[in-house]
Amino acid sequence: EAQRQTDQDEEVLKILVATDIHLGYCERDAVRAQDSMESFEEVLKIAKAHDVDLLLLGGDLFHDNKPSRQCLHECLRLLRKYCMGDRPCSLELMSNPEENFHTPFGGINYEDPNYNVAMPVFSIHGNHDDPSSSHASKQALCALDLLSVSNLVNYFGRAREVDDITISPILLQKGSTRLALYGLGNIRDERLHRTFLTKKVKMLRPSENEDSWFNLFCLHQNRVKHGATNYIPENFLPNFLDLVIWGHEHECKIKPGRESTNFFITQPGSTIATSLSEGESKPKHVGLLQIKGSKQFKMEEIPLTTVRPFFLDEIILSENEDLDPAHSDAVEEFVAEKVKSLIRKSKRVFAEQKKRDPSVTERLPLIRLKVEYTGFSPFNTQRFGQQFVSKVANPKELLLFHRKRATATRSSNTRGE
Amino acid sequence: EAQRQTDQDEEVLKILVATDIHLGYCERDAVRAQDSMESFEEVLKIAKAHDVDLLLLGGDLFHDNKPSRQCLHECLRLLRKYCMGDRPCSLELMSNPEENFHTPFGGINYEDPNYNVAMPVFSIHGNHDDPSSSHASKQALCALDLLSVSNLVNYFGRAREVDDITISPILLQKGSTRLALYGLGNIRDERLHRTFLTKKVKMLRPSENEDSWFNLFCLHQNRVKHGATNYIPENFLPNFLDLVIWGHEHECKIKPGRESTNFFITQPGSTIATSLSEGESKPKHVGLLQIKGSKQFKMEEIPLTTVRPFFLDEIILSENEDLDPAHSDAVEEFVAEKVKSLIRKSKRVFAEQKKRDPSVTERLPLIRLKVEYTGFSPFNTQRFGQQFVSKVANPKELLLFHRKRATATRSSNTRGE
Ligand SMILES: [Mn+2]
Ligand SMILES: [Mn+2]
Ligand SMILES: [Mn+2]
Ligand SMILES: [Mn+2]
Repeated sequence: EAQRQTDQDEEVLKILVATDIHLGYCERDAVRAQDSMESFEEVLKIAKAHDVDLLLLGGDLFHDNKPSRQCLHECLRLLRKYCMGDRPCSLELMSNPEENFHTPFGGINYEDPNYNVAMPVFSIHGNHDDPSSSHASKQALCALDLLSVSNLVNYFGRAREVDDITISPILLQKGSTRLALYGLGNIRDERLHRTFLTKKVKMLRPSENEDSWFNLFCLHQNRVKHGATNYIPENFLPNFLDLVIWGHEHECKIKPGRESTNFFITQPGSTIATSLSEGESKPKHVGLLQIKGSKQFKMEEIPLTTVRPFFLDEIILSENEDLDPAHSDAVEEFVAEKVKSLIRKSKRVFAEQKKRDPSVTERLPLIRLKVEYTGFSPFNTQRFGQQFVSKVANPKELLLFHRKRATATRSSNTRGE
Repeated sequence: EAQRQTDQDEEVLKILVATDIHLGYCERDAVRAQDSMESFEEVLKIAKAHDVDLLLLGGDLFHDNKPSRQCLHECLRLLRKYCMGDRPCSLELMSNPEENFHTPFGGINYEDPNYNVAMPVFSIHGNHDDPSSSHASKQALCALDLLSVSNLVNYFGRAREVDDITISPILLQKGSTRLALYGLGNIRDERLHRTFLTKKVKMLRPSENEDSWFNLFCLHQNRVKHGATNYIPENFLPNFLDLVIWGHEHECKIKPGRESTNFFITQPGSTIATSLSEGESKPKHVGLLQIKGSKQFKMEEIPLTTVRPFFLDEIILSENEDLDPAHSDAVEEFVAEKVKSLIRKSKRVFAEQKKRDPSVTERLPLIRLKVEYTGFSPFNTQRFGQQFVSKVANPKELLLFHRKRATATRSSNTRGE
């Protein structure tokens, strides 16, 4: 009933799926500066190790709309290192690349005779790296355009206007497996919501034998409802789709599932925690998607090992009867003990990892303790954090004080990034 | 006595020499936005048309240290369009690329088996596009590093420190012609001046048969004296050199000459006027350098046709006896007439060009009129310029008022940019 198994063979089209890599996030942080790059490199290594036919990225490759020079340079370096090479690409492009890709050269990168591309990367843009124009007279470009013009990324899914959208699929064939890949880079949710309601989002079907294609759609929007139109309801998407890759939501829910729709949805989640929320504290994975024929697919979840450990917990001060709001030192001591126990937990988890894989290196953990302080006074979190410098990766943001938990607080954890 | 003629043959190493292209200069100007790009494209076309072995750029490829996304994108597009291709590079690299080039890939671009480079570009950095680090923890990078990591430019001449400099030449061989190419990207003049005085600028000679090489040095510094140490005296450079390509000075003095030195100096000048000075108003050229054997070279001057016409003149109001300082309208009218005569001159020059080459397109000229107004009142130049919108490219900067011409005013025309 769920997803169907396929065999490993020459007919299988293999795609590594990842999203929200947020290159450059925390790049000026003394501890975390390399985190986003290390996970990106791990994604590239996994893609290479599995000899995939393509790497598909679901937006927010860059954290900043204008990445720093260092960030852009490192991204170019990694793409060149892992994506260029002699390995022949066995994917045959059956559609018109001029309709598919945003590049002045009009093609798909591995067909350019001047470049040996071993592993093509395909990406849509997210809300963090969307096209913007510095001034009106010039064409809007995004950071992905720099990767595209350098022939390192196939940038697709860029709608010409937001109120009337026609998506032409990229048609790729490997043996008898045929993939129709649809993409739509981020558009402000309210705008896109309305464009769907006015029936102005058209997804073209292949003219030839439309039922013989596996229909994959990659988008980068709110999936969780925030207000009436500030998200894209799953059932807005057309039923001919087989699988949807949903970017922007950072919580890893990569196992393909379906509730109200005919098609499956996979939500890979980010490869780095850009907020200290519950969703981001869950284990992070990328997906090895294997497609065979027109309808068979399976998705293998591959855990990322470079992601900085992140432990999140909550305490309610008033539930502890020994604590006296008048003795603030004792209260701080109590909270510090709780942080220390999370650090110990991190060390235990690392020790277990190390048993399984002696090559792993220890990383300072991200620790977040939510403190419900009703009846108590909050204290200075910056000063509190000083004792944990060199013990945690985020000494300045260890604690989050709040009064009585409201439902709103919970739901904000699931906000897309 | 001057330069020696060489024959066209397989032994001739052909280099197109250009400098100070200043991509992005005036990119937000309604009229001049494309000027820098058009001249860069012309340089690339000339290089390609002459089938050169390499294109050598002397710094200030970018006008802004942080080029706009649009500017960087257009630069990458042009480099990819003109430099990639099947043409085999017949230059043999005889030196260690790790010592020569600033790239994480450690090589010269046309030897990377994953790229077909038809025409290698070599560049040093200038003062406009020098390496800078956004924060201390990171390696300083410059815009050229983005071209280098994309394998489109061979970025060389980057000294590790400014107080103790060792330059290893790039050794290139074509048939029996051997080129030792030395480069030094811009360093603040006072610093470099001192480093020369302390004998801490070392230029290594090839270990093998050092007299068999043509020694070419490319630098980007003040050549004209501005204060005691704010320039590099020509005779600081070692006598073993054969030819020096001097970037940074925008006036085209491309014909190789020598005064106090054993070696020749060529000063190609900028491909775009970035100031409305006398030096910039002179015809702009690039140079086709042909080297044969170890000592023979010739330099052919190739005029650029895309450069916006620029006419500069001076008037002294007090020399005109009909002008009455009390009648400001008549004075303005007189000045406007002078501007109009320069516009007519521009049209005559264009008409002559058009006779020779019917394909040339007319461009609004840059006009600069220096007005010596001793005894008169200056008037509002912005308002004055309004009548010349759509008639000149720079209506807001047509006039430069000054009192009595001082020697200092003259010499400021020759300031490097
Ligand atoms: Mn996002
Ligand atoms: Mn994101
Ligand atoms: Mn300069
Ligand atoms: Mn310059």
